Amino acid sequence: MAEYSRKQEALDYHARPKPGKLGISVTKPFTTYGELSLAYTPGVAEPVKAIRDNPEDAYRYTSKGNLVAVISNGTAVLGLGNTGALASKPVMEGKAVLFKKFADVDVFDIEVDADTPEAMIETVARIAPTFGGINLEDIAAPHCFEIENALIERLDIPVFHDDQHGTAIIVGAGLINALELQGKNLADAKIVCMGAGAAAIASMDLLIEMGATRDNIFMCDSKGVIHDQRDDLSKYKAKFATKTDKRTLDDVMAIADVFIGLSGPDTVSKEQIAAMPAKPVVFALSNPNPEITPEDAKSVRDDLIMATGRSDYPNQINNVLGFPYIFRGALDVRARRINRQMCVAAARAMGELARRPVPNTVLEAHSKDKMSFGPDYIVPSPFDPRLIDFVPPAVAAAAIETGVARIEYPSHYPQPAIDVSDQ
Amino acid sequence: MAEYSRKQEALDYHARPKPGKLGISVTKPFTTYGELSLAYTPGVAEPVKAIRDNPEDAYRYTSKGNLVAVISNGTAVLGLGNTGALASKPVMEGKAVLFKKFADVDVFDIEVDADTPEAMIETVARIAPTFGGINLEDIAAPHCFEIENALIERLDIPVFHDDQHGTAIIVGAGLINALELQGKNLADAKIVCMGAGAAAIASMDLLIEMGATRDNIFMCDSKGVIHDQRDDLSKYKAKFATKTDKRTLDDVMAIADVFIGLSGPDTVSKEQIAAMPAKPVVFALSNPNPEITPEDAKSVRDDLIMATGRSDYPNQINNVLGFPYIFRGALDVRARRINRQMCVAAARAMGELARRPVPNTVLEAHSKDKMSFGPDYIVPSPFDPRLIDFVPPAVAAAAIETGVARIEYPSHYPQPAIDVSDQ
Repeated sequence: MAEYSRKQEALDYHARPKPGKLGISVTKPFTTYGELSLAYTPGVAEPVKAIRDNPEDAYRYTSKGNLVAVISNGTAVLGLGNTGALASKPVMEGKAVLFKKFADVDVFDIEVDADTPEAMIETVARIAPTFGGINLEDIAAPHCFEIENALIERLDIPVFHDDQHGTAIIVGAGLINALELQGKNLADAKIVCMGAGAAAIASMDLLIEMGATRDNIFMCDSKGVIHDQRDDLSKYKAKFATKTDKRTLDDVMAIADVFIGLSGPDTVSKEQIAAMPAKPVVFALSNPNPEITPEDAKSVRDDLIMATGRSDYPNQINNVLGFPYIFRGALDVRARRINRQMCVAAARAMGELARRPVPNTVLEAHSKDKMSFGPDYIVPSPFDPRLIDFVPPAVAAAAIETGVARIEYPSHYPQPAIDVSDQ
Repeated sequence: MAEYSRKQEALDYHARPKPGKLGISVTKPFTTYGELSLAYTPGVAEPVKAIRDNPEDAYRYTSKGNLVAVISNGTAVLGLGNTGALASKPVMEGKAVLFKKFADVDVFDIEVDADTPEAMIETVARIAPTFGGINLEDIAAPHCFEIENALIERLDIPVFHDDQHGTAIIVGAGLINALELQGKNLADAKIVCMGAGAAAIASMDLLIEMGATRDNIFMCDSKGVIHDQRDDLSKYKAKFATKTDKRTLDDVMAIADVFIGLSGPDTVSKEQIAAMPAKPVVFALSNPNPEITPEDAKSVRDDLIMATGRSDYPNQINNVLGFPYIFRGALDVRARRINRQMCVAAARAMGELARRPVPNTVLEAHSKDKMSFGPDYIVPSPFDPRLIDFVPPAVAAAAIETGVARIEYPSHYPQPAIDVSDQ
């Protein structure tokens, strides 16, 4: 009998019983002539006039306040590269599913046929009135920086490129916990970052924000260490040009407390892992094939803490731990933006949650009897229902603390599990 | 005790229990790690690759094929004029509700901050890969013509400005039936069109397509009859410049079999109605206040058939009879556009339905004991569940007949109630 391949299963999942993963639901009663006349003409004129006279009323009378656009131009889709806008749609719908299921955020996926950063910026800015927030997705570097920065500047709603900052937040959460378990601290840790793309740059930015020391970071691209004597660096990479005589990955791995791979498969060797100082942390996040497999890394030493991007190994660095909850918190205080402090608060709250006892439902989801904070549990499970209790309150409190919230702390929220005022 | 005003009721309807009228629903199972890995990475890569290699597969693996964008720039919202993009959102959400409830079409409402036709065209064209069709809404004339034409030219999905063609279709359906009841025919009928805006021009275009005689149409704007000696006409109005010595509304009403008002309140007098030849048809469609009230019109003669845009009089010319079903039919054969023949087919199918016995559920919805085809029932009730059996099959068959369908006639459809090949 022919095998039911994973490929066919994935295609069938998307095709049946009807195509795609998203639909619209009507949230108001709508069966009588009276309700028709409230939802549409003539009744609908009243909220229109209210919003015309006071734009903030859009949060009161429309779905804007719970609505995020997941927007891509399809230039850097998964590991597949530039697939074009249309072909990115299954990914963006998938992202919408995660937003909805994990944090009850409504999402419209928007695939934009834009071949220049300017076209992308103009298009997104023009449709922005529709939404309470914008999640940019799978946009190739370096355009993603220009696009995100221009939109943040121009709009008064959160604009968040998840491939950059979402990844950075989970890396930050996991690294804090891993270093604590290894008896090290972030300020002193020497960090090698393999890869110099959007996620790598955002992750190092956030780690510095969280306390890492700028000169302890050694970012590597295909030409080796990014140092201050190189003259081939983009302005984005140049920020990380370190004053050092180290030139190769071999050179820096020998002094690295932390290796963070955000590059491609099989780019670090067993020998390089073996050469790291005692009690290292190795995040091999290339997906689905990591920079080095946990099997290979653990074959050469047993004192490391390892994370990957995969669900079939412990310590999955998975963006779904972040974006649904970060937007939930931002939307719930009508934040004007998602700033660094809100990202740090999200990372710290997420890290804190991993230290708490694991709920039984989570053990069941993972088919395990036991899971607890330790070398194989440095970030929460995506199925931990307390993510919604930990992350949004921290994000909302940080938004209020930094003056970017339009409204007060939500009365239905628990107090944040971390102190956001001491960041 | 203070009255619960209609205004407050409309605002409360939009505000509670949560703001707005739309949400997202996830249409696939999503509770386990396995389903997460099908809906998102790594499984989602399979439909991405399939669509990259064959763009038509977007209809198979994403929600595109059932997804319409309702898009406005907020320049002509209801009777309120230019409210801006944001304030139009309650109307666009309302339209989405109607699409979903009446024809199970999923809709994203998109409010576009665009102050030129070029900006609107570029924006809509760029986000078009997301959708299976585009419903333009509440865009002021004359820009609406330029915007719609450019998008039809540029895109390979239906682009339909409902304020123009949706209105025209219901007018066409109602007028055919009214004329039959009055013992007149469309080819010979002299038609006065009060108003020369987008809906008026589209309605007269469609009536000509359905058999009206070009030289029998007298369009009037604020300066009187549009005739061939005027030198102040836009290119859109100039199409309707008639060779005639008639100059005033008085002049043309005296010979009009049909009056169609698409202008503003109280613009035709009892005397002008009284002066029409025997057995006239009067559509006073300005909303909420018609060109003349049914009470006033009927006070001067009892041989007329009258329709308005209001639900509290008989014969409501209501766009909801059209757009949900027109797009349903177009989507179900993946039509590349909605052409004239499809509009005529929709009008004729809708007219045909009004002649059939009225279902009991419809009588109940209108709190009536009896309703049947006649001077007070020339168009179907919006609550007639057979609209979905009549209009989409006619639209789909016309799309196939005219070669704009990408796929065959849906096997689950009934045969069309009208013959679309003889148009």
